Amino acid sequence: MLGLLPIQGDITAIADSINAVWVLTVTFLIFFMQPGFALLEAGQVRAKNAGNVVMKNMMDWGMGVLVFFLVGAGVSALAGYATTPGASLDVSSAFAYVNSPGAWIGWLFGAVFAMTAATIVSGAVAERMKFSAYVVYAFAMVAFIYPVVSGFAWGGDGLLSSAGYIGQALGGVGYKDFAGATVVHALGGIAGLTAAYMVGPRTGRFDSEGNARPIPGHSVLFAVIGTLILAFGWYGFNVGTQATVLTGEGAFNGEALGRVALNTTLAMGAGMVASTLVTTFWEGKPDPLFAANGLLAGLVAITGACVHVSWPGALVIGIVGGAQTPLVYRWVVDNLKIDDVCGVFAVHGSAGFIGTMLIPFFDVAGFSLNQLLMQVAGTLVVGTWTVLVTMVVLGVIGATIGLRVSEEEEELGLDRGEHGLDTYPEFTAGDEPGALADGGVRVETDGGVTTAFTHFGDAADDEEVDE
Amino acid sequence: MLGLLPIQGDITAIADSINAVWVLTVTFLIFFMQPGFALLEAGQVRAKNAGNVVMKNMMDWGMGVLVFFLVGAGVSALAGYATTPGASLDVSSAFAYVNSPGAWIGWLFGAVFAMTAATIVSGAVAERMKFSAYVVYAFAMVAFIYPVVSGFAWGGDGLLSSAGYIGQALGGVGYKDFAGATVVHALGGIAGLTAAYMVGPRTGRFDSEGNARPIPGHSVLFAVIGTLILAFGWYGFNVGTQATVLTGEGAFNGEALGRVALNTTLAMGAGMVASTLVTTFWEGKPDPLFAANGLLAGLVAITGACVHVSWPGALVIGIVGGAQTPLVYRWVVDNLKIDDVCGVFAVHGSAGFIGTMLIPFFDVAGFSLNQLLMQVAGTLVVGTWTVLVTMVVLGVIGATIGLRVSEEEEELGLDRGEHGLDTYPEFTAGDEPGALADGGVRVETDGGVTTAFTHFGDAADDEEVDE
Amino acid sequence: MLGLLPIQGDITAIADSINAVWVLTVTFLIFFMQPGFALLEAGQVRAKNAGNVVMKNMMDWGMGVLVFFLVGAGVSALAGYATTPGASLDVSSAFAYVNSPGAWIGWLFGAVFAMTAATIVSGAVAERMKFSAYVVYAFAMVAFIYPVVSGFAWGGDGLLSSAGYIGQALGGVGYKDFAGATVVHALGGIAGLTAAYMVGPRTGRFDSEGNARPIPGHSVLFAVIGTLILAFGWYGFNVGTQATVLTGEGAFNGEALGRVALNTTLAMGAGMVASTLVTTFWEGKPDPLFAANGLLAGLVAITGACVHVSWPGALVIGIVGGAQTPLVYRWVVDNLKIDDVCGVFAVHGSAGFIGTMLIPFFDVAGFSLNQLLMQVAGTLVVGTWTVLVTMVVLGVIGATIGLRVSEEEEELGLDRGEHGLDTYPEFTAGDEPGALADGGVRVETDGGVTTAFTHFGDAADDEEVDE
Repeated sequence: MLGLLPIQGDITAIADSINAVWVLTVTFLIFFMQPGFALLEAGQVRAKNAGNVVMKNMMDWGMGVLVFFLVGAGVSALAGYATTPGASLDVSSAFAYVNSPGAWIGWLFGAVFAMTAATIVSGAVAERMKFSAYVVYAFAMVAFIYPVVSGFAWGGDGLLSSAGYIGQALGGVGYKDFAGATVVHALGGIAGLTAAYMVGPRTGRFDSEGNARPIPGHSVLFAVIGTLILAFGWYGFNVGTQATVLTGEGAFNGEALGRVALNTTLAMGAGMVASTLVTTFWEGKPDPLFAANGLLAGLVAITGACVHVSWPGALVIGIVGGAQTPLVYRWVVDNLKIDDVCGVFAVHGSAGFIGTMLIPFFDVAGFSLNQLLMQVAGTLVVGTWTVLVTMVVLGVIGATIGLRVSEEEEELGLDRGEHGLDTYPEFTAGDEPGALADGGVRVETDGGVTTAFTHFGDAADDEEVDE
Repeated sequence: MLGLLPIQGDITAIADSINAVWVLTVTFLIFFMQPGFALLEAGQVRAKNAGNVVMKNMMDWGMGVLVFFLVGAGVSALAGYATTPGASLDVSSAFAYVNSPGAWIGWLFGAVFAMTAATIVSGAVAERMKFSAYVVYAFAMVAFIYPVVSGFAWGGDGLLSSAGYIGQALGGVGYKDFAGATVVHALGGIAGLTAAYMVGPRTGRFDSEGNARPIPGHSVLFAVIGTLILAFGWYGFNVGTQATVLTGEGAFNGEALGRVALNTTLAMGAGMVASTLVTTFWEGKPDPLFAANGLLAGLVAITGACVHVSWPGALVIGIVGGAQTPLVYRWVVDNLKIDDVCGVFAVHGSAGFIGTMLIPFFDVAGFSLNQLLMQVAGTLVVGTWTVLVTMVVLGVIGATIGLRVSEEEEELGLDRGEHGLDTYPEFTAGDEPGALADGGVRVETDGGVTTAFTHFGDAADDEEVDE
Repeated sequence: MLGLLPIQGDITAIADSINAVWVLTVTFLIFFMQPGFALLEAGQVRAKNAGNVVMKNMMDWGMGVLVFFLVGAGVSALAGYATTPGASLDVSSAFAYVNSPGAWIGWLFGAVFAMTAATIVSGAVAERMKFSAYVVYAFAMVAFIYPVVSGFAWGGDGLLSSAGYIGQALGGVGYKDFAGATVVHALGGIAGLTAAYMVGPRTGRFDSEGNARPIPGHSVLFAVIGTLILAFGWYGFNVGTQATVLTGEGAFNGEALGRVALNTTLAMGAGMVASTLVTTFWEGKPDPLFAANGLLAGLVAITGACVHVSWPGALVIGIVGGAQTPLVYRWVVDNLKIDDVCGVFAVHGSAGFIGTMLIPFFDVAGFSLNQLLMQVAGTLVVGTWTVLVTMVVLGVIGATIGLRVSEEEEELGLDRGEHGLDTYPEFTAGDEPGALADGGVRVETDGGVTTAFTHFGDAADDEEVDE
């Protein structure tokens, strides 16, 4: 038996090593969703606002990681303590990760989820929200809007855990949302819807009778490539949430990994096909942009369910997620009259809520009424919290900084107005008021200062070389 | 010896865990070839067809995974059984993976190879093939055209295995195609060539005397970026096919991994340099698009050989794969008069066949005549099967749905004709008949229905906001 | 104790396997920086030079891996031997990797670092350097300019190691540059600066009084997407340099991995925010291109430090790296009058040197004067070597091949001049002399030869289909 002892030690280190390689790899994949969102959103706006969209995405990430390290991750733990019977609000324990190198891989794994939630909103409010107002809202998102919800659901304890107040009331059932269909995506989607409502529609989005008028984005190709990048990152998101590949006791979690991988794949395929079929029957032609967004909605819908449900369940969840995308999108635009530019509510919001609530019906552990009640409760908690706090935060921002750019700036484009640049100085000549007309008139911004201080490749300058 | 038993158990779980992390990671990389193909192909077609190309790519994947799970993977096993002496056509065993969670990681690993084969074809038939006809063909591809070939070669048994009819006749030699130079790429390439022949050339591709006239694609940049994305995914494809990193007996396969990684790298470099040199000598200037396609052809050529050959062999195979690309491409266009838009035969077809047949000459296991005969037999089997079945399937589609769009639609562009959208509404003004002329005339499609049901970012609408 | 022996064997194989999966994965991520650089650089040049930029990037990689296998990696070892007291210049040992399959994973891991250094230079000399001249310089870069430096710093021995001449003089202190802030990035950045100086500025970059005039790049969106791709690859670069996850003795390096991951993340966020704040205060508006380049500079600055410093140190290093980017960029342009198109000196050069020299001040091992002296010595060695050898190599190239294209070709664009193609034949109509003017006049290149030998998607032809 002497020979066994060193190996008992080894298996923990071995398991930790294997799981660390896995978690780091999937964390990088989830980070890579950032350029996916950037391309998806940029492709769905006009060229004159594309630079603003990607500036928002960079700011979400760059500022977001700082805020989530210094504030957000600790707030998340506190939100869990505060909503669990018997837990104490231990601040030093909540922020212990700050000085624990062994916790930093886990922190980063959490951070990429937080930043995904944050970046979803920018797609809803594109083309008219002030950059400074957006930055303040994004700060709130990673400092407490998302952390509170993730603390409720994923902290080990917390309101939606089996140990929390709701869970205890329902006989010790915990909210099932494996990789964040609700906690990440629906939160982002409903925050986006609320923000789009508060900022108001783009000029010209609705005519004088309130009918929606389309405003085409500048590149369907970019939107589709962004979608496929997101799907790549989503494998990290979903399959990687099965973070323990080898347990400390030496057991291989291959079946759970396989289930998540299969369900994720089938739901994205089913979502894409279902959305395509709906648009084909409705419009007469299969629509690439809805195909892409249906694929994403299938992914969102299965994100919470993927480890829990059978593969026929995954197919159904993917089909529902995809099929509802064009319908909910039209309902948001035509009935709610909300200008959610990239359809983030239909793709991330409703798909996330529906997918999470469908879990009990296809759960391989069998149906449980308490579980269903918990799934509904979770939806209500996440939805209510997100809508209310978003309204308060944006209300304060609106009363101070202001939420949207001027009508002149909106027409000029936010790239010019907010950032003083043309994203594509050679491609958009003559398309828009104020654009480069074959070397002719240009709107001057900031005079000598901008000229004096210019850029890599100098993309954004007042004066230009005569060629 | 008591102390040893638990560890013997552990090593299997440890090996399974390490290999699962590896296989899942490379599977995600191989999936990521999908946006690589989408960009590569989109860049090589005109802007008016770019949305159609990526819609085909999404459909390949989204529909493909459903079909490959419900049909294709089982057909593959049956194809193996049917061509192996003594094997029985056991349907329930062939489809056992459907209800075996432990088999699902392996299924997904197989699926990403199948979808790679399927997506290659779209590049050959771009800019004129009907979307509906393409979808039906893609269905056939993932339901049985590819599965039969992979079952022949990779099923453990099967026609091209050492246990199959051909293998037995050649003294128990099995076909060497490590990661699918023939089974995946040449199959896709020759299917593409056959399909391009059956669909016929684009209008204007050949003049009245039958001379080829160039039709430039809309973005060399996108094609090159797509190429580099593909190369990234290809590391997963080739190195990941060495799926066992640690054996169940605890042995590390580091040398095999190293050989595959090195050979893949050298062959892609050599293919790129060789193709560039050929175009430089021929055209007088190094051609970025042939450099990119030469890099890919070097990768294709080494895909079957990478674990088998010495590195000087990999260099030769890469050089041959790259150098033949421009030559075979011209031969297809100028001699066969086939309009293979993205050159998929030269890049995936001939490069794949040649690379696989060269294996015996550089095999680190030494030259074997029977092996060479087997390599030739494999080429013939795969080539014959793919060409014949493609002709039958497309013949049936042609007689029912029809293979290509009308001449009017082809001129208008398939984005408008098949999908009712402009991929780049702001960039292509005035370039083509029917395009947006500075806010002027537009071809209307589908009247009120399209207007009523519109899009994320609204990329595809008839009416547009006045700005 | 009998029971222990097989496990002692196992743990090595297990550790090797885990580390191999990790190193291969991060190697692929680092390779993926190639399309990141391609997009970043292409977005910062005019459309007429975008094809040339990506052709250079492909050539760096494709030719580079061949040269680095046959020459560079061995030269690196020799450079180490030559600058270490008591070491002998053993050529066969230096090149032993060529025939050692067990060394090939490690070789590829080294190669992706070398190719990163090489590709940085192309951003500095874009839009006017001759392709042939660039290729010869890139050859020198991967054959000996970079290998000598990596041999000095990373060979185990070598001038900057604790065993080298400088290290011995400083009491056995070795240069700290964990993942190559200096060895890879600053080397590339200062080589780029030197090359940009020697090639001279683009026509029109400075007016007759020597004042800089901006030349906007053709797509800020592409530059930002390239940046985010680079950040993804950078996780491989930095975290992957902690290549040993599990030691041969069975110890898990989780804290080191966590530290690198956290510091990399915080520094990139801080660099992005700091650069944005500087441009906002200076220009009045947050600039997306400087935000992107600040994010990259934060990454460069922390690349050498990430395993050594505390997280507050990482924040400071990221802030300094980001904040100095716009300032150093203007200093290079306005004071040095060097036309470093993509700002590679500010992003990779100064950020790399500064970040590496700041290590001792935030080292978790405590401050050491000898370490600081070593950091300064390393900067001087790398800087001096790179500048001098670059000047000599480019001097020879200039005297033979010539360094830059003719003024006519520069105006026409290098895509036409060097490669005979239009990167975007449909998007740039009418923008430039010689471009496609709505189907009108075109500059003809190479007559019949080009016409006879044309392309995938035919992007680069003289004659075009009438549509």
